[in-house]
Amino acid sequence: MLGGSSNVQSKWKRKSAVTLALTVLTSSQAILIVWSKRAGKYEYSVTTANFLVEALKCALSLAALARIWRNEGVTEDNRLNTSLDEVSVYPIPAALYLVKNLLQYYIFAYVDAPGYQILKNLNIISTGVLYRIILKKQLSEMQWAAFILLCAGCTTAQLNSNSDQVLQTPVEGWLMAIVMAVLSGFAGVYTEAIIKKRPSRNINVQNFWLYVFGMAFNAIAILVQDFDAVMNKGFFHGYSLVTVLMIMNHALSGIAVSMVMKYADNIVKVYSTSVAMLLTAVLSVFLFGFHLSLAFFLGSTVVSVAIYLHSIGKLQR
Amino acid sequence: MLGGSSNVQSKWKRKSAVTLALTVLTSSQAILIVWSKRAGKYEYSVTTANFLVEALKCALSLAALARIWRNEGVTEDNRLNTSLDEVSVYPIPAALYLVKNLLQYYIFAYVDAPGYQILKNLNIISTGVLYRIILKKQLSEMQWAAFILLCAGCTTAQLNSNSDQVLQTPVEGWLMAIVMAVLSGFAGVYTEAIIKKRPSRNINVQNFWLYVFGMAFNAIAILVQDFDAVMNKGFFHGYSLVTVLMIMNHALSGIAVSMVMKYADNIVKVYSTSVAMLLTAVLSVFLFGFHLSLAFFLGSTVVSVAIYLHSIGKLQR
Repeated sequence: MLGGSSNVQSKWKRKSAVTLALTVLTSSQAILIVWSKRAGKYEYSVTTANFLVEALKCALSLAALARIWRNEGVTEDNRLNTSLDEVSVYPIPAALYLVKNLLQYYIFAYVDAPGYQILKNLNIISTGVLYRIILKKQLSEMQWAAFILLCAGCTTAQLNSNSDQVLQTPVEGWLMAIVMAVLSGFAGVYTEAIIKKRPSRNINVQNFWLYVFGMAFNAIAILVQDFDAVMNKGFFHGYSLVTVLMIMNHALSGIAVSMVMKYADNIVKVYSTSVAMLLTAVLSVFLFGFHLSLAFFLGSTVVSVAIYLHSIGKLQR
Repeated sequence: MLGGSSNVQSKWKRKSAVTLALTVLTSSQAILIVWSKRAGKYEYSVTTANFLVEALKCALSLAALARIWRNEGVTEDNRLNTSLDEVSVYPIPAALYLVKNLLQYYIFAYVDAPGYQILKNLNIISTGVLYRIILKKQLSEMQWAAFILLCAGCTTAQLNSNSDQVLQTPVEGWLMAIVMAVLSGFAGVYTEAIIKKRPSRNINVQNFWLYVFGMAFNAIAILVQDFDAVMNKGFFHGYSLVTVLMIMNHALSGIAVSMVMKYADNIVKVYSTSVAMLLTAVLSVFLFGFHLSLAFFLGSTVVSVAIYLHSIGKLQR
């Protein structure tokens, strides 16, 4: 009885810790992006950076595994070698992300960058719908209401004087945005399905295989998009201290996302990254002297109510 | 049993009818205001128009009473003469509105008209709080969440590119806006308390007394604010067809508000006028070729979820 309750408590602690880590890492990630843009240093190739992020995550997973093997020995759950049955699904999320990242280059023909930030909030809805369909987990009616509010609140918080241009997005732009939201939501939910399918399997082994395929697909992206640039200017052209920090941060937040998938779920991930977005805006006031808009306060209020409703919706089930 | 259920049904029908009437009248009111502004005719004195609105409401209440007396005879519940005990509270809402309307002239020293429209949404919160305190009626936690969302959603729907100026409102402006919201909320809730205190009393008698004092206090407002203008240019200076329509509309919506207080409550009134605000914007697209902003869609979504949560919050109590 006591063991059970302390087990519940330790699970809750682990869930909170990974969620907090994801929130903090996502906020600092956005701050690094603002910093790098302000410093005017954004000339490195994104595909090489993405490849290095996957490579770093792979290395970190191996390092964690090495420590575990030293302490606990190699077991069925933490051994690296695997069956074709287990490993065959691991390339799928990486492939979906690759397609999504390639589409990202084309959507900018239809919407500008701030408009794309607004449209990205469609991810919230697609994640909710796919979570319901693929993982067959029920959300209560109130949790759905909360999810719609989360999407509306995040979008409101990001409104600026040019946001109305999004409404002029041509049909092609909307379709691409929806396809990208579905791809991204599907990749997230599918990753959760893979990781949760084998609950006793060590998360670092699961991460290792996810990131190996991430490296492979990002290598393809380099070949497709930046082959000439890498050949002429070199792999590390345009890298700076900020770039290195961003790669390290992306790697750590990628691992945090996996942890949230293992110990919590995609819904927690969506709330966590939404809160990170608001947190970033508040931090930017102190760091960069940004001003908060009325829309930001209204959006934050709606997001706060959404979080409250999600939590009481959970209790009532 | 059957009688009881048909009684509930007829009560529900009456409540729906007055709520619908209030929504439609409030929408058309806003449309008349836009129309009169577009026609550039806004030169009549507001205090004389307000006085005529009260006079017209008084006349309509008397007409309704005359018909009732003819059909049902004069009873204890529909006779016009009253006790000092009953009538002594009727001047209070009219006095509060007078003070609020006088303050309205001074707040424009601190905020512009669109900013004032934004700040008026504080009425939603003040009405909820005073409804709780004065009428001692409980709102469930979810209904409070819905009320906060209603306020945030209405404000979001009204956002435009200059809305951020509201954040620069000086402390005096904020204080006046809060005082006005409290006065307006208090007047509304107090009117409900007066009307509901004697449930069997005919609503037209209750209205008659409310509007008699409304006329009296608006006469004071004419003396205070527009005495010189009325003396020099005449009582009806600047009146046009639109002005007459606006007065008729205000009178009818005033009566609808009283009906909502009698058969529903202030909470229903707030939801009804909020929906009217959204309806007005949609109608203005067809009537005046207005464009709906992204903020409007987001605000409408939040208001819709608020209405949904309010209704399920009611069921759970």
